[in-house]
Amino acid sequence: MKLYGYWRSSAAYRVRIALNLKKIPYEYCAVNLVKDGGQQHSEEFHRINVNELVPVLVDGGISISQSLTILDYLDEQYPEPMLIPLHGEVRYKVKELAQDIAVDIHPLNNLRVQQYLINHAEFDKQDELDWLRHWIMVGFSALDDKLRHTAGVYSVGAQVSLVDVCLVPQVYNALRFDVDISQYPTIERLYYSLNEISAFMLAAPQYQPDSPIKKPPSE
Amino acid sequence: MKLYGYWRSSAAYRVRIALNLKKIPYEYCAVNLVKDGGQQHSEEFHRINVNELVPVLVDGGISISQSLTILDYLDEQYPEPMLIPLHGEVRYKVKELAQDIAVDIHPLNNLRVQQYLINHAEFDKQDELDWLRHWIMVGFSALDDKLRHTAGVYSVGAQVSLVDVCLVPQVYNALRFDVDISQYPTIERLYYSLNEISAFMLAAPQYQPDSPIKKPPSE
Repeated sequence: MKLYGYWRSSAAYRVRIALNLKKIPYEYCAVNLVKDGGQQHSEEFHRINVNELVPVLVDGGISISQSLTILDYLDEQYPEPMLIPLHGEVRYKVKELAQDIAVDIHPLNNLRVQQYLINHAEFDKQDELDWLRHWIMVGFSALDDKLRHTAGVYSVGAQVSLVDVCLVPQVYNALRFDVDISQYPTIERLYYSLNEISAFMLAAPQYQPDSPIKKPPSE
Repeated sequence: MKLYGYWRSSAAYRVRIALNLKKIPYEYCAVNLVKDGGQQHSEEFHRINVNELVPVLVDGGISISQSLTILDYLDEQYPEPMLIPLHGEVRYKVKELAQDIAVDIHPLNNLRVQQYLINHAEFDKQDELDWLRHWIMVGFSALDDKLRHTAGVYSVGAQVSLVDVCLVPQVYNALRFDVDISQYPTIERLYYSLNEISAFMLAAPQYQPDSPIKKPPSE
């Protein structure tokens, strides 16, 4: 199993959490999204993913891009522990909440979008931060409402699910962009509880081999 | 079955196609996204979807937002015809290609994003069009490459799939924003073939009850 990722890509971060939860050993192939104009645009990586985005998971003969598809694949092929309930209304609630993050918030805050706004819309650092925070805050405001009804110990009841896997990287981004997450008390509580689980903690950007921040996990 | 939608919402358009393909009768509840500052922000609709976005599908006691979740739900609960293959590598290829559209292209071109760029980034009509076309063209360029390998009569082989359901509304948007789709020959061919299927044709924005364009389907 090979994962092409980048330490700070939150879509890759999701996949790292799932791989850790499922205790699947994998080779981490770092693609530096900022060096040399972005190694994702190299000829070599273009052959791996014509979309020139991370993550990409390669498992034997199968190669999958799109983190939500990778997470579906992992959950169906390596079902222990199961992240998407197989039956009932809760199955669709888990998918919906995960997509509230992965479809409605994250794509707007992607690196390539930030680059477009700086290069073509003359965004300065403050405009950029306003943009990033706006979409996180719009999304978190609704999400916190929804999670208040679904959360138990974790985002949906007492089992770790796909929602948690998507939530933690998005909160990491929110904190990076100085969003005051105490406005979202359920999200805040979940973030700190989830990060006590080693599968989540060890998937964090700062602990990846390609992170420039060299800091061992705290005890 | 109730579908809250808007004639020109491409996420709602996807769901209409799926409902038509599966021959599921439904009540169409129009939510005007532009009138009165957007009826999706009304107290009444906020109670239906706290995200204040369409589509929302209500089926008996279950209410689902997020079009990809709705499409998963419909395919699992009303499996004829099946839009997502149940097994094999093709299952994940279908999901990945659908998400190339629904995650990487569409969220950037959503109405609320256009409104932000006009109101906060002083985008004029031309900046707006440049932005919309940029993300469609980046996405279509990679997608056309991928579809060249997967397409048969339809996007993936000989069966209509989730990819087709996502593709047609996205091409509709591309044409609306004057993207020259002849640059993407596989996408162009698929679009016109798919629109010969009545389930696709009748789901088109101009034929919805809330469309201001009053034009009966051509013979």
